[in-house]
Amino acid sequence: MSDDVFHYQPAESALSYRFGRVPSVAGVQPWRLLRIDTWDCYGGRVTSVEDLPSEVCEFPNLNPVSGPIDVNGVRAGDTLAIHIVSLTPRQPFGFSSTFPHFGTLTSTTATATLQPPLPERVWRYEIDGGSITYQARGSDYRVAMPLAPMLGTIGVAPAAGESLSTLMPGPHGGNLDIPEITAGATVYLGVNVEGGQFSIGDGHARQGHGEISGAAVEIPLTVELIVDVIPGVRTLWPRIETDTAIYSVGCARPLEDAVRIGGVDLTGWVRELTGLDSHDAYQLIAQAGDVTIGNVCDALYTAPASIGKRDLRGAEAYGGTHRQLRHLADSFRNRP
Amino acid sequence: MSDDVFHYQPAESALSYRFGRVPSVAGVQPWRLLRIDTWDCYGGRVTSVEDLPSEVCEFPNLNPVSGPIDVNGVRAGDTLAIHIVSLTPRQPFGFSSTFPHFGTLTSTTATATLQPPLPERVWRYEIDGGSITYQARGSDYRVAMPLAPMLGTIGVAPAAGESLSTLMPGPHGGNLDIPEITAGATVYLGVNVEGGQFSIGDGHARQGHGEISGAAVEIPLTVELIVDVIPGVRTLWPRIETDTAIYSVGCARPLEDAVRIGGVDLTGWVRELTGLDSHDAYQLIAQAGDVTIGNVCDALYTAPASIGKRDLRGAEAYGGTHRQLRHLADSFRNRP
Amino acid sequence: MSDDVFHYQPAESALSYRFGRVPSVAGVQPWRLLRIDTWDCYGGRVTSVEDLPSEVCEFPNLNPVSGPIDVNGVRAGDTLAIHIVSLTPRQPFGFSSTFPHFGTLTSTTATATLQPPLPERVWRYEIDGGSITYQARGSDYRVAMPLAPMLGTIGVAPAAGESLSTLMPGPHGGNLDIPEITAGATVYLGVNVEGGQFSIGDGHARQGHGEISGAAVEIPLTVELIVDVIPGVRTLWPRIETDTAIYSVGCARPLEDAVRIGGVDLTGWVRELTGLDSHDAYQLIAQAGDVTIGNVCDALYTAPASIGKRDLRGAEAYGGTHRQLRHLADSFRNRP
Amino acid sequence: MSDDVFHYQPAESALSYRFGRVPSVAGVQPWRLLRIDTWDCYGGRVTSVEDLPSEVCEFPNLNPVSGPIDVNGVRAGDTLAIHIVSLTPRQPFGFSSTFPHFGTLTSTTATATLQPPLPERVWRYEIDGGSITYQARGSDYRVAMPLAPMLGTIGVAPAAGESLSTLMPGPHGGNLDIPEITAGATVYLGVNVEGGQFSIGDGHARQGHGEISGAAVEIPLTVELIVDVIPGVRTLWPRIETDTAIYSVGCARPLEDAVRIGGVDLTGWVRELTGLDSHDAYQLIAQAGDVTIGNVCDALYTAPASIGKRDLRGAEAYGGTHRQLRHLADSFRNRP
Repeated sequence: MSDDVFHYQPAESALSYRFGRVPSVAGVQPWRLLRIDTWDCYGGRVTSVEDLPSEVCEFPNLNPVSGPIDVNGVRAGDTLAIHIVSLTPRQPFGFSSTFPHFGTLTSTTATATLQPPLPERVWRYEIDGGSITYQARGSDYRVAMPLAPMLGTIGVAPAAGESLSTLMPGPHGGNLDIPEITAGATVYLGVNVEGGQFSIGDGHARQGHGEISGAAVEIPLTVELIVDVIPGVRTLWPRIETDTAIYSVGCARPLEDAVRIGGVDLTGWVRELTGLDSHDAYQLIAQAGDVTIGNVCDALYTAPASIGKRDLRGAEAYGGTHRQLRHLADSFRNRP
Repeated sequence: MSDDVFHYQPAESALSYRFGRVPSVAGVQPWRLLRIDTWDCYGGRVTSVEDLPSEVCEFPNLNPVSGPIDVNGVRAGDTLAIHIVSLTPRQPFGFSSTFPHFGTLTSTTATATLQPPLPERVWRYEIDGGSITYQARGSDYRVAMPLAPMLGTIGVAPAAGESLSTLMPGPHGGNLDIPEITAGATVYLGVNVEGGQFSIGDGHARQGHGEISGAAVEIPLTVELIVDVIPGVRTLWPRIETDTAIYSVGCARPLEDAVRIGGVDLTGWVRELTGLDSHDAYQLIAQAGDVTIGNVCDALYTAPASIGKRDLRGAEAYGGTHRQLRHLADSFRNRP
Repeated sequence: MSDDVFHYQPAESALSYRFGRVPSVAGVQPWRLLRIDTWDCYGGRVTSVEDLPSEVCEFPNLNPVSGPIDVNGVRAGDTLAIHIVSLTPRQPFGFSSTFPHFGTLTSTTATATLQPPLPERVWRYEIDGGSITYQARGSDYRVAMPLAPMLGTIGVAPAAGESLSTLMPGPHGGNLDIPEITAGATVYLGVNVEGGQFSIGDGHARQGHGEISGAAVEIPLTVELIVDVIPGVRTLWPRIETDTAIYSVGCARPLEDAVRIGGVDLTGWVRELTGLDSHDAYQLIAQAGDVTIGNVCDALYTAPASIGKRDLRGAEAYGGTHRQLRHLADSFRNRP
Repeated sequence: MSDDVFHYQPAESALSYRFGRVPSVAGVQPWRLLRIDTWDCYGGRVTSVEDLPSEVCEFPNLNPVSGPIDVNGVRAGDTLAIHIVSLTPRQPFGFSSTFPHFGTLTSTTATATLQPPLPERVWRYEIDGGSITYQARGSDYRVAMPLAPMLGTIGVAPAAGESLSTLMPGPHGGNLDIPEITAGATVYLGVNVEGGQFSIGDGHARQGHGEISGAAVEIPLTVELIVDVIPGVRTLWPRIETDTAIYSVGCARPLEDAVRIGGVDLTGWVRELTGLDSHDAYQLIAQAGDVTIGNVCDALYTAPASIGKRDLRGAEAYGGTHRQLRHLADSFRNRP
């Protein structure tokens, strides 16, 4: 690729811990290849299994993001499309951990109980080619599993002038923790402020749907992106498009509310794309679609509702934005 | 196959609408091929898109099951393994519908609001070879999708002498609505009464995870099963095993509680199978495992937590029961 | 009072642990004084602070009820009114406890986590006249609080032929754990079977709204009741009437669903009683009414929505049933 | 009272719609009488029953607060005590309303369904001396109920540098909607930034527990306050103290999580005040305490867990702050 690619490599002091009301670090153009380095959710403070997050990290400085970055010409009321070209680990290992009173299979600060926390423990995963290796802490059990890099946190400045912790998902995106947000996917986010102010971070070498321990295999990434603007089109909840499916992401507690939000948003989207009435669209999604779980551990839970494109009979979302960005990504990739 | 296969073909009057405290209709032996006909969730009353369930069905007689059937030699405290050999639609079409105040994207009798119900509507799906065809009601939109038969309801008599509607899922199984319960899968259920008293019903030609409209593509099935007994082994929540993965099914509201139950049960199961301690097992599941959604529409929601067998390094659940039943099913299938 | 009062004093072996599909122990007439002895939720097995419920009780034999009792002339589709005349402790002390993985401030079998249970502990309360005394276990802290006897469990045979554990609340009543169910209150329950088959139990010397430890101050009671029948009038959810207010009780998880059920039922009830349209009734309840919490510890949570009678401008529920039963109770009380 | 009382009377343009990252409008001293005018939640835009909020209000400019106000000498890690001396309606009438897809007995943007919203409707209440009068819109039904002014929204700048909509409750306070926050009560809030930056608004002429229609009887108030600082003492969740009870307020969804948070916080507080161990404190709260519902309509629900002071045997919270502020308020009140 050309040498003049935008490459943002933030120092720790330049990282951000909030979406909204943060000064932009750069402005970029649509349709250009962007390269952005992200730090892991521990801000790089966990360097061995001896480094307990509660000791080495400084709350609330968790889950740092790189940004915010302004996109030239984007305005409130537009939709920002962020196409992920590639996700490359910046080191051959990653870490995961439990946190005290955080995660799915423990009481938490929200699902509060009088029980003491589970023990805090850190795991180191070796990354080797296309696989990563789990190594138990209490025994010599090891098992390799596929490397499957994904971007945990991606968002824009939220509505209503709010400034939200990067630990929080919502209509603005944020800490979505959805494995489908990987290379080849396009994320659509409704824009609330001039420039959009997008930030990314929280790379995962892999993550099970649910992220039930409260952490994935956390790694720093180099992320290649292309952004596009769909002017004058509002997007209420985060949406994802891949070559084969479209997704509406609900963010809420309890988890069934996240499912409801995703389902209602997807019903409306399918209705627009197919001309079906609401009830026919609801029925089609119910039989042909799917609902998965992003995470069940954060401040709000996330659930993507999806349907395959073949069931949409060729309809194209956002005027074919994903297809165009995909082609553009290929052209960048094939450049000498 | 041999002609002396047990084949239970209940008349409508022989169907049951509850698990527990229902007289058994038959006794069977483990390790024999069983053939059981099931009716659809409407009890066959919906015969065209003009038949609204609220008019043609007689509440509470919904979701009939075939059974209960006693397994010789099974006792309270044992585990019953039910291996699904095949699921064959008994007619070349199925129906789906909305119900008033039932489903995920509507207020319901539990998530009660002052809003009127969504309109009740029925859809007819044609089954042709390996595909089924969706036909919109409000337009000529049609799309074919893969036939993927599954068994929505499978359970035993519940604990504590309860008698529960077949609409209810729980530790006894019941209305689980999990697409993974299909041909080739083994379902494990804890036994609470002499004989176990298992029943099955609620066949689906296909169903999206979530079953968000409150109904799948409902069809009558001929179900081929083999049952086995694991004596003296308790199973607290429904479990599923396929050739590639094991699943623990949580049943609860809110949905995150179903996820928690499935996750805790799977953690304990993985611990037993691998020798990992609880925290290492939790971590392994979080990165290698998955949590999906069975349904978000019934009296309780269901969520299967799963992990692939390759991550268990060859450990076999329930002493290899699934593998043995799978082989036996093959031997039946290959018999002249 | 007259000597010919019906007085049911069940032995332990006559107690029941389910609502529905239990043979009736007696038949009674409306408008007669009934005296029924109840056992505490431990079945009398906890006799000192050394008796841990998990050791002395035999699961699932918890929360026994006295009954079921048939009311002559009651049929499915009617409403049964049960007026509580008096609640008298049958011993000068009561017990409370935690249970492992049960209660509000702990993970439970439904809100499952990997954490070990809180310690099981029993407290003994002395009852002396109108007060009961809390005595800490870990120190000499003592404090007296008002005796406020209430009936935790009251219900009829459920719909759809189900048989439900007495630990479960629902449309049939059951384990409601609502402090407003006390002497002077009338409980209305929809009848599902001939005779109604009501049972009562689970007396509390007092209970905070929420019953957050999972147990109140548990005592055996002698309960004086009068029952009445409102023929042909359906009651969908438990309702309560006192001299000053009416209550609709929602039973569900999550807790907001219990609130929604109670709120919708009360809105409909107020609409009927006042002639207000639904939206005006909703508004009146929102400002004049109240929602409290029965319990947040059982299989389903309970929440009574209420409004004061003065805001109903003299309208009488169920044709004045409560007022009539109240007068009748007074006449029994004043008899020589 | 003296003429030099601080009296803040913001114009509409000076109102704020967020907590955190808003420039302070004034600095005040502890132990001085403060008088602050608040606007109603509609920003004064609803002036008759013809003014529909969705038409006259400009989203997201709802629920304006007066402030933020710095308290001299307050620092992050301190607790700010805000004692409410008096709440005086600034007009002899108030308004309530439904909003489309907002409230408890309707689907909402979070509990999303495909159903259309309930009709939007406005009610006007006349305030006359100590009573307010409900007037139905669809009939001539009128009923008077007691005037019971309370402050719906009270908070400080949140932690982690966040800036949150005034519609949101949380650890920083915010839109708590708890009827116990009335004249004579002291609210304790943990301070996150220099000066604390407290704001108040959203006066209610009265509100049922639950605020189930999504709005109380909304009125502009003149609020008299005295603030105090408890240096070096952290307060994790909002707490309230009255002459007779102490309250810990949980803010979460689902509602049981709000109950859990309040219960755990109160258990810790009672433990500190009484020397009881956690389990004895839990038991005491369960029997002597209470859990009520603040609101079940906002972005997070609120639930105060409380216990009467007589059960604490004279222990004083925060070194007697409430008692001292109460005396000071009396002295101001009695000044010539």
